[in-house]
Amino acid sequence: MSGSLAVIGLGPGGPEMLTPEAATALQSADALYGYGPYLDRVPARGGQTRHASDNREEGARAAAALRHAAAGARVALVSGGDPGVFAMAAAVCEQIERGDADWRQIDVSVVSGVTAMLAVAAKVGAPLGHDFCALSLSDNLKPWDLIERRLAAAAGAGFVTALYNPISRRRPWQLGKAFECLRRHLPASTPVIFGRAIGRSDEKISICSLDRADPSAADMATLIIVGSPQTRIVERPGLEPLIYTPRSASDTSA
Amino acid sequence: MSGSLAVIGLGPGGPEMLTPEAATALQSADALYGYGPYLDRVPARGGQTRHASDNREEGARAAAALRHAAAGARVALVSGGDPGVFAMAAAVCEQIERGDADWRQIDVSVVSGVTAMLAVAAKVGAPLGHDFCALSLSDNLKPWDLIERRLAAAAGAGFVTALYNPISRRRPWQLGKAFECLRRHLPASTPVIFGRAIGRSDEKISICSLDRADPSAADMATLIIVGSPQTRIVERPGLEPLIYTPRSASDTSA
Repeated sequence: MSGSLAVIGLGPGGPEMLTPEAATALQSADALYGYGPYLDRVPARGGQTRHASDNREEGARAAAALRHAAAGARVALVSGGDPGVFAMAAAVCEQIERGDADWRQIDVSVVSGVTAMLAVAAKVGAPLGHDFCALSLSDNLKPWDLIERRLAAAAGAGFVTALYNPISRRRPWQLGKAFECLRRHLPASTPVIFGRAIGRSDEKISICSLDRADPSAADMATLIIVGSPQTRIVERPGLEPLIYTPRSASDTSA
Repeated sequence: MSGSLAVIGLGPGGPEMLTPEAATALQSADALYGYGPYLDRVPARGGQTRHASDNREEGARAAAALRHAAAGARVALVSGGDPGVFAMAAAVCEQIERGDADWRQIDVSVVSGVTAMLAVAAKVGAPLGHDFCALSLSDNLKPWDLIERRLAAAAGAGFVTALYNPISRRRPWQLGKAFECLRRHLPASTPVIFGRAIGRSDEKISICSLDRADPSAADMATLIIVGSPQTRIVERPGLEPLIYTPRSASDTSA
């Protein structure tokens, strides 16, 4: 008999950004799997087992959750933000493709969440108001040259860019190189937004221009949005400015 | 005295995908503004006024909501999906920039929601599991040449692409042209996902290969995801296949 595996997006942080669908799926699970700090956000319920693992063990964590589900349990695997964006849903699909034939019979579902770029954008206005890209800066799973080529293609074609996984202890220089690359394609005044932990007590948002963007302002939990040449700043006396990208674009912008 | 304006994401449809933050913001408003079918999704509450408008009046709707807020009311402006993605948040910022000086003093907030591409992706696996772009196919506000250039840049650099606003009565040929453009850059077998109305009674998902993608399968409410050369299909006997884009990419993929 096969159980089920729900891959659940917790959103950026606060419980008020967790969808009722996700809350119900968490409640009904026999076993919870996930990166420790994400699991800590889920309220305890009697009778549920918890299986925390380290940040860089995504494949092994997905396989363990699938094995448990294949044995008949209702398993929930938690992800920060949305599980489909640089997170656990792809890791689960990879393991199903490679794993035991009976893993293909598990009732797998993905429960959406608010991904970090949406939450950060909401805090400053509408920087993702026009065409945009989401790109992971981690070169653990792809070569750095490919990342630079994608940054150049996105900026050159007029997309706004959201940068996931910008920096970590083992990847200290990549974000600085990414800013260098983007400076070759974008005006010095292009707005850059650093956002982290939206809806949590350690929430932090800062805004600067691309020529002043400082990689050391980011940590592992930061999401960075780099505007396009069309992105605008609306000053508001006594209030934070609004940053937005207009819905219209002219042909000379790309 | 200035009131407030909350620009609120309703998510893709069902109430179980509406965040508690959005539900609270809707409850506490004196006046609700929005496109009629979106307003119809919000449960009635006594004492609240409702101001429905047509789909193509975004600027005027944003201005009306701001005017009401400037007069001291707590106003909520609803958007499908996430208000920051091809939706009302940018329209509000535009109107604030152009409008009365006192509109800059309004307490404006944006409340995130699950945007369509995340909901559609979740239904089929993890097609957005690696770098991706979101692009509006509407040439009402940008020239068609620019759209084709962006499609080519995104597909050529190995991004998965989510297409918003693919088709309408007044824009009947654009989606077919977009598929033609993408076929010049991507393998014929590239998976294409059509999804609409996720979480609603008229939810519909279909999957085909790029060479067979038929524009007439889409309507105004459809979100289309076109894979990259890396996007994979995992067949499951007796179940729908999973579609996912692996977390890793090699340099030859772009």
